[in-house]
Amino acid sequence: MELHYLGIDIGNTNQTVALADARGELLAIERRQTDPTRGAVGILASVIEAADTLLDHRPARDAGLAALGVGFGGPVELPTGVVRLSHQVPGWEGVPLKRLLEERFGVPVTVDNDANAATLGELVFGAGRGLRDMVYINIGTGIGGGLVFGGRLYRGASTSAGEVGHTIALPGGPECTCGHRGCLEALCSGTAIGRRARELAEADPELGSRMLALAGGDLRAITSKIAFRAAAEGDPGGRKVVDDTVEYLAVAVGNLLNLLNPQAVILGGGVPEVGAPLFTPLRERVRDYCMEHPYRAARILPAKNGYDAGVRGAVALALEAAGMLPCG
Amino acid sequence: MELHYLGIDIGNTNQTVALADARGELLAIERRQTDPTRGAVGILASVIEAADTLLDHRPARDAGLAALGVGFGGPVELPTGVVRLSHQVPGWEGVPLKRLLEERFGVPVTVDNDANAATLGELVFGAGRGLRDMVYINIGTGIGGGLVFGGRLYRGASTSAGEVGHTIALPGGPECTCGHRGCLEALCSGTAIGRRARELAEADPELGSRMLALAGGDLRAITSKIAFRAAAEGDPGGRKVVDDTVEYLAVAVGNLLNLLNPQAVILGGGVPEVGAPLFTPLRERVRDYCMEHPYRAARILPAKNGYDAGVRGAVALALEAAGMLPCG
Repeated sequence: MELHYLGIDIGNTNQTVALADARGELLAIERRQTDPTRGAVGILASVIEAADTLLDHRPARDAGLAALGVGFGGPVELPTGVVRLSHQVPGWEGVPLKRLLEERFGVPVTVDNDANAATLGELVFGAGRGLRDMVYINIGTGIGGGLVFGGRLYRGASTSAGEVGHTIALPGGPECTCGHRGCLEALCSGTAIGRRARELAEADPELGSRMLALAGGDLRAITSKIAFRAAAEGDPGGRKVVDDTVEYLAVAVGNLLNLLNPQAVILGGGVPEVGAPLFTPLRERVRDYCMEHPYRAARILPAKNGYDAGVRGAVALALEAAGMLPCG
Repeated sequence: MELHYLGIDIGNTNQTVALADARGELLAIERRQTDPTRGAVGILASVIEAADTLLDHRPARDAGLAALGVGFGGPVELPTGVVRLSHQVPGWEGVPLKRLLEERFGVPVTVDNDANAATLGELVFGAGRGLRDMVYINIGTGIGGGLVFGGRLYRGASTSAGEVGHTIALPGGPECTCGHRGCLEALCSGTAIGRRARELAEADPELGSRMLALAGGDLRAITSKIAFRAAAEGDPGGRKVVDDTVEYLAVAVGNLLNLLNPQAVILGGGVPEVGAPLFTPLRERVRDYCMEHPYRAARILPAKNGYDAGVRGAVALALEAAGMLPCG
């Protein structure tokens, strides 16, 4: 009998639920938008309804459900699968998500944070396929990450490992949402790149003129994307913002290579989608922050799971819950 | 029948060979000093002679030799156990140390670099006993390190993992022996602390006066130890050197906690022997570079294996070779 896996990606406003086979093929997807003010209970009801819809209409009705995986947009305690907290949605703190879903669906469930889910997704279905030792970095509005050692997700002593975004890339640098200074997230997240671009345009109107023009003359509308677009045109202001981004990121990636000697560092999320204009100079600049041997051993790769990275990661967690993958 | 393990610690001038039981009890030790100009062949002959001496005079003559472990003072390729290179001693490059010793002694042999050996030694016999996830940092004339994940030594994609000493703690900082800038080793090794103390004494004779006096008036004789001694007396110059050391180290340790969420970071080697004057402020300053959750999960501990850390580590590698420990 064929077995199916259910992946649930829970963000603050967007939830995606997918039914997949053991090869990670997404057979059907349900997407929901839930008003965060409806709280944890509203979101939970919404994803359960989406899961029921998928199970009721699954293509092979006789296929059994093997397991369920959840990628959650905030810290989760393992192996209990209890949510630690959510900054944006009220009511999540202490919710025993794993137990609730196991009781509801009668299958094994693994709940983990979305960065670990995406990491496992890249390992099983994406750019990390077949690798034993790799680091995944998600660079979007924030920076998250995950670690794979010996072919399994490494979660650390208390399941908070992989916080690449809060390693310090510039001591004394700009303040981060975590309260510390100079974190990679405060320098290289999409939010931070946009902020640095606006600061440049304000401090040096000549250097910022092209980015300002691309933003329709509205300083507040200068974003990370605009900085990369200006840089691609050869604009010195855009180039400065991108060069600084690459330099900070090179410090962080170089440190990862020296420390962990992985086979690959995989970059996913919105910012790396720009492709070669980020990856080409990054590969070059990492050399200056890393020893020859681990540099040669590692590839710096774009993630492959793209738009569905979240839910593919959740499906990978379902495979882990079913004992189809070595557990971390 | 009782089984014995042989540990061999190979440094540039000093070699230590020990016979141990399965609990790591050192039953007998032979120490050798070998002129580095005698090269790899001279050192190899010396340690084999020391090992033969131990085996010939072992307390329980009928005890079998189970395995042999070697901690080597330079990079080693695994699982082959071939020496990659030695900066100080000619002739080591490409020596198949594992194969040579397996043929000579007829038992399984594991060869690894001395930092990994010391890490495994702390895990099995020292401050890391019973831990699953930990980082070991050796702070002596240089800075080395090793990683333990899931109760086993993590060696990375090509056995160069654990180079904490070459992670960047201060981008653009002082030049390191590895050719890059701002590595932890270039800031916090005993050598680097002494250099910063001398630079301070030269740049600011008033601030450096006490350290200069402790060095008998010879600027070149100011060392890391003198800086710590002056700081202990309350001297502002010594305090400045120690405070800066703690700050750099706190960045590196904070990054390790955020990234790896270990149960412990264990500090060994000559510099941490100073004890509380380093550990007390370090534990406090790490807070500023690390999130609350991994901070609370981790202890920052002094190593326990002390003077015999090298050879105890080699004995731990012998236990690994014999299949008594999970392999990395």
